[in-house]
Amino acid sequence: MLERFKVPKPDQVRVPEGSLRKTVAEIFEKMGVSPDDATEGADVLTMTDLRGVETHGVSNMMRAYVQQYREGRLNPTPDVRVVREFPGTATMDADGGLGIIVGRRAMELAISKAREVGVGIVTMRNSGHAGAVGHFAMLAAQEDMVGMCITAGGASVLPTFGAEGRLGANPVSIAAPARNEAPLLFDAATSAVALNKLELARRVGSDLLPGWIADLDGSPVLEETAPRGRGEFFGLPIGGTREQGSHKGYGFNLMVEVLGAFLSGSVPSMLDSEPYGSGFKNYFAAYDVAAFTDLDEFKDHMDETLCVLRTTPPAAGQERVIYPGLSEREEEEERRANGIPLHREVVQWFDDISGELEVTPLERG
Amino acid sequence: MLERFKVPKPDQVRVPEGSLRKTVAEIFEKMGVSPDDATEGADVLTMTDLRGVETHGVSNMMRAYVQQYREGRLNPTPDVRVVREFPGTATMDADGGLGIIVGRRAMELAISKAREVGVGIVTMRNSGHAGAVGHFAMLAAQEDMVGMCITAGGASVLPTFGAEGRLGANPVSIAAPARNEAPLLFDAATSAVALNKLELARRVGSDLLPGWIADLDGSPVLEETAPRGRGEFFGLPIGGTREQGSHKGYGFNLMVEVLGAFLSGSVPSMLDSEPYGSGFKNYFAAYDVAAFTDLDEFKDHMDETLCVLRTTPPAAGQERVIYPGLSEREEEEERRANGIPLHREVVQWFDDISGELEVTPLERG
Repeated sequence: MLERFKVPKPDQVRVPEGSLRKTVAEIFEKMGVSPDDATEGADVLTMTDLRGVETHGVSNMMRAYVQQYREGRLNPTPDVRVVREFPGTATMDADGGLGIIVGRRAMELAISKAREVGVGIVTMRNSGHAGAVGHFAMLAAQEDMVGMCITAGGASVLPTFGAEGRLGANPVSIAAPARNEAPLLFDAATSAVALNKLELARRVGSDLLPGWIADLDGSPVLEETAPRGRGEFFGLPIGGTREQGSHKGYGFNLMVEVLGAFLSGSVPSMLDSEPYGSGFKNYFAAYDVAAFTDLDEFKDHMDETLCVLRTTPPAAGQERVIYPGLSEREEEEERRANGIPLHREVVQWFDDISGELEVTPLERG
Repeated sequence: MLERFKVPKPDQVRVPEGSLRKTVAEIFEKMGVSPDDATEGADVLTMTDLRGVETHGVSNMMRAYVQQYREGRLNPTPDVRVVREFPGTATMDADGGLGIIVGRRAMELAISKAREVGVGIVTMRNSGHAGAVGHFAMLAAQEDMVGMCITAGGASVLPTFGAEGRLGANPVSIAAPARNEAPLLFDAATSAVALNKLELARRVGSDLLPGWIADLDGSPVLEETAPRGRGEFFGLPIGGTREQGSHKGYGFNLMVEVLGAFLSGSVPSMLDSEPYGSGFKNYFAAYDVAAFTDLDEFKDHMDETLCVLRTTPPAAGQERVIYPGLSEREEEEERRANGIPLHREVVQWFDDISGELEVTPLERG
């Protein structure tokens, strides 16, 4: 993450991961979620914050989830079911359950299919927000598989040259196991900037960069600009402008609609009669490495590759080259040791909701 | 394609598609390729030019392929074989055959697996250039499947912040069937610009845009710049700079390495001891739509979505919104009727090689 979006030191409150997990799980339970599901949701969010993916950790998401449970837009006790199945594939209906909680079931099914036939593809429609989808890709990597998770939802991102929102932020993630290196873990929105980053930018008082959002007439904003509220801007596909490749970002974004929305038997959100009417639509893939090639050789080559990447001579003025997953591993180690640096505004929200719901308040690290 | 890269009208020579196909097939045969394979290679190249994908049609590629056959770097009679197989997956070795010719075998195997178990994933290592990979994705779409094709090869693109080439141009393609609309067909390099576009830019006398390439010290070139020769620049990932999202392009690029190179039992080109030593490494996916959801409903929703996209109100100063695959369909109709507009320099090359090899020369349209 760019330096400007990190929580400024004076605003940081360090919270131990165990305390965050406990409080979050208790909040989920107060929303009517079963203890097992509450633990799962807390694990996913805490892991996301440990990896430094602050856009999708508790800071932005927890209050959104609480609000959605309270408004009845999330189902705390969903009947998650397989609606169509083949040896290598399945389509699931999440019955309005929160994606970060029910996603594991889809990825575990994909993994078991991959063990049988080499690859498993599971799509899941009608879920709530799926969080940082790289989390699910990592579940496969931990089983010596290549994992992918993709989620489609929303319609606030413009197609190239358009002036009306048609696309979601539609992230793509992939994870692959290594031996001694941190695993490869890539997870990014196919919009120029994750829409959650606007909330985060507002909180830390940072401007957005040129080419990240568009005015309401579809013109890309090509200077630094303050974060705006919902309805005051459109997102742009990766690239920002046609000249800088937004048609490619647009294509990757539609790839997510095809794999997530269409293959789950749902529709892209642009066809919804009300915002998020069709929920989030997800795609989980597990490729069993040993079905394709020798696993040990794969891991050796992965280590070698990741080492070559991170020891690449840096460009003029740059410190170092990293690979996707490396800074996440580094953040995780630092945050496990020193606590997760939440913004004091977020900690205040947790204190308020903990008092209101009568759950264990956050400890300070 | 941006207007500036199209062949200028005064330099255009229109060639009927049938004539181009015939001459190209005869050239392949003179390289020692079997008649069936020669026809296949000519079909792929001609289809690519019909779709307007001039970077990957005959203009750039035919002379490269001829040179590679003559230097023994392409095997005209490869023993293409399956080296590992599961019900949903296979790994193939292309034995040095040209990717555009042998790729169909991999996609057809993926399609037949998808018929059995819902999805088919076939990786193929050790091939020559795979051309415009969307061609193979379309083979699946024509069978009512979602198709993807990805190819990894080369090491002239920088990782974000790097000053040494590590990555290939590594394109990703996806195709999905519609009912009345042109099928969705997305096919793009994960580098800021397809490296073949530099040759095309040189031919038509156009400059490159800011953020497309880097100097040899790794600094992105942020003004318009003349195309450069091999070894005088590095490619950049989609996004160009970190601020404009090159870390996302870098991640998508590595996704291609994982799916293409690692899952085919090969290595990324950055580990090659000589340039292109491991050849091109390819990934073919076929998802049987009917295994996931109702096919008719899928097509209806696809039509509705593509129509919503192309009728999106355009941004200030823009003419229209298109979706990936629409301009390809329009080009195909126009070029089938009026011939393929080759640059006179390309036609001259064809005349020279046709004389030398004693094959049927190109007709003028």
